[in-house]
Amino acid sequence: MGSEKTLVIGMFGFGVVGEGLYKVLKQTPSLKASIKKVCIKNTSKKRNAPASLFTSEKNDLLFDPEINVIVEVINDSVAGYEIVTTALKNGKDVVSASKKMLSEHLPELIELQHTTGRSLLYEASACASIPVIRNLEEYYDNDLLHSIKAIVNGSTNFILTKMFEEKLNFKEALLLAQQLGFAETDPTLDIEGYDAANKWVLLLAHSYGIITTIDKMLFNGITQINELDAKVAQSRNQSIKLVAQAKKLQNGTVASFLLPQFVDHADQLYFVKNEYNGVVIESGFADKQFFYGKGAGSFPTASAVLSDIAALRYGYRYEYKKLKQQVPSTLSDDFHLRIYISFEDLANIPKEEFTSIEEWHSGNERSYLIGTIPFKSLLHKDWWKTNNTSLVLMPDNIIENTALTELKKMSLSLAGLTV
Amino acid sequence: MGSEKTLVIGMFGFGVVGEGLYKVLKQTPSLKASIKKVCIKNTSKKRNAPASLFTSEKNDLLFDPEINVIVEVINDSVAGYEIVTTALKNGKDVVSASKKMLSEHLPELIELQHTTGRSLLYEASACASIPVIRNLEEYYDNDLLHSIKAIVNGSTNFILTKMFEEKLNFKEALLLAQQLGFAETDPTLDIEGYDAANKWVLLLAHSYGIITTIDKMLFNGITQINELDAKVAQSRNQSIKLVAQAKKLQNGTVASFLLPQFVDHADQLYFVKNEYNGVVIESGFADKQFFYGKGAGSFPTASAVLSDIAALRYGYRYEYKKLKQQVPSTLSDDFHLRIYISFEDLANIPKEEFTSIEEWHSGNERSYLIGTIPFKSLLHKDWWKTNNTSLVLMPDNIIENTALTELKKMSLSLAGLTV
Repeated sequence: MGSEKTLVIGMFGFGVVGEGLYKVLKQTPSLKASIKKVCIKNTSKKRNAPASLFTSEKNDLLFDPEINVIVEVINDSVAGYEIVTTALKNGKDVVSASKKMLSEHLPELIELQHTTGRSLLYEASACASIPVIRNLEEYYDNDLLHSIKAIVNGSTNFILTKMFEEKLNFKEALLLAQQLGFAETDPTLDIEGYDAANKWVLLLAHSYGIITTIDKMLFNGITQINELDAKVAQSRNQSIKLVAQAKKLQNGTVASFLLPQFVDHADQLYFVKNEYNGVVIESGFADKQFFYGKGAGSFPTASAVLSDIAALRYGYRYEYKKLKQQVPSTLSDDFHLRIYISFEDLANIPKEEFTSIEEWHSGNERSYLIGTIPFKSLLHKDWWKTNNTSLVLMPDNIIENTALTELKKMSLSLAGLTV
Repeated sequence: MGSEKTLVIGMFGFGVVGEGLYKVLKQTPSLKASIKKVCIKNTSKKRNAPASLFTSEKNDLLFDPEINVIVEVINDSVAGYEIVTTALKNGKDVVSASKKMLSEHLPELIELQHTTGRSLLYEASACASIPVIRNLEEYYDNDLLHSIKAIVNGSTNFILTKMFEEKLNFKEALLLAQQLGFAETDPTLDIEGYDAANKWVLLLAHSYGIITTIDKMLFNGITQINELDAKVAQSRNQSIKLVAQAKKLQNGTVASFLLPQFVDHADQLYFVKNEYNGVVIESGFADKQFFYGKGAGSFPTASAVLSDIAALRYGYRYEYKKLKQQVPSTLSDDFHLRIYISFEDLANIPKEEFTSIEEWHSGNERSYLIGTIPFKSLLHKDWWKTNNTSLVLMPDNIIENTALTELKKMSLSLAGLTV
């Protein structure tokens, strides 16, 4: 860490986040960071700032030698990537909140930070105001990180909370989320899990040094969750939440997925309601930590961007230690998941793929079963998302192969077949 | 941050924390940290490690040029201070968990880190496994930190939880805490607030760059909490917790104290039960973050020590930025507190010191009143801790002078006296 540096900022975007940042930086001169120029698309729109601040010409920022930091808070991942890479190449540090862009280009962006020696920070891109990326990067050594479980999407968590606590149906809850600004007009990216998956790509990199992409990931959103699922959850004193999860298996590889999950009343994530996000980290000595904060909305995002700006004053950069200086972990596809699955017609469920089935409840309209299935039977398959089928993970959901042998012996033994 | 360094550790102490660390470091060679020698008092005691590991001669560690890190996990603040200072002077980095020693010698230890260029890390000394010191140091800029509220003592929180949830009385709850290892045989330091106050000294330094000592602090433990207080809390759907709190006032100074407090059902700290600790940080854009984890017990302490050791591999050190590179905040004694106070005899309560009294409930055995009082009427005074008096802060407890004028006007106006 060097000594304090005066930051001259060029900012792309002047929406709620950008405008908020502008105001706060003006009010706190001790931050030694000021915005010199803001690049926007529409210069004719009336803004709460002097007209001289604005330009529609990106090179006015990217090629201004006085500007040493580029803040990118626009909503266009193609333009965002060009801005960020040009800025780094031009010797500027960068703060970005564009999870999709970052997730799609992580390897190139890590390499570019390395070759240019500049810093790219993106705390705002995952869990908004919770400093989870920096904590994973600095505090939880790969060897010490047993598992991480997180609610990373505020919109879906808000919708699920309203479905459970106020008995709204999915559409009503979504509408309310949109009215309150917790979901976009086009909510597809949120409710189908894409937004969370992009964030999870970033968190996996900083948790375990694993670089992946969302097309390699087992994930889903919350659109299939139905009344029966909610009823089953409530009868078990559980809630359903969209949880991203990674766990180091006994052989050192990592199991990772992002799916709706039954969350027990005693679980810290049960406490995470409405637009909040939460992260539970299990580290050395099997101890649990819980981080909690607002995950959606302009202020939490601005707050995280501001913290990144503050860190740049001291020359902070991600070192990607788990990737570069340690042996990075690899993803496993060789484990089993304990799942609940509800459906209209059993014919659509590949029963033969299950390793074991614990429960089976048959109903007039929908039925459900609980059992254990190989991870590979879900990855890159879509039987569990089609034909009005709904899959929800059980609370204890990762079954390692070693445990499976025991499980099989037990089932057989229970069935009267001694082994 | 430099590149990775191989650590050769000399450790003082081989209790539960020390032994745990020894085992984990042996099992994880990738941490590149090994314990070369352990200094203990009693070398004849049987230990779960080779006899060649141990010595009772501290200079075998402190003057071994191969040892580059000293880990100090003993329970003696005088010996601890000598070990830590000698180690720093001899060019070694140090990890310590001794909050009392650190709190009593913070200015000298900061100076010594500066002059020697070595690093002294002490994450384990406050909130054990929660990485709160490093987050305050790195993530929450002074300007952005509105307030911090924390439960920093697991023993008292355990006792209070059992008093509220299982209706144990203070003595029964204390006994249970001792049986489970959450309180010392001599629990004075915990239950009278000294342990929490020492931790709070450290957190204040990293929150606001404020260096203080516990004798300048307004603090108390939980020994005065009685059944009436608990009943009042429950009637308000609140709990009582020992909360350390600091808040930046409008004039830029900081209000700080550590007292029992009514905690509302909706407050994140209400969620913190048993031996857990929790920290709520309000930062820029008025956003709240909540950190939660185990605060008492050997494993959480060992976990924090281990994280510090891991950080030393990359040359991490506290920069004390808020103290050295920014304008540090100063403590204020010019504000008011909204308090609840229960007592046997009104004659022992200096009513004339109160700015306003909102409620007054008179009972046969104990009575209580709720009102606003200058901070100075409590600091360095003991009327509120003697004569079986019990003081508990109200949930919204800091009243700034500006707000007070409004409050007075309102009261006068309510009393029919137009101003």
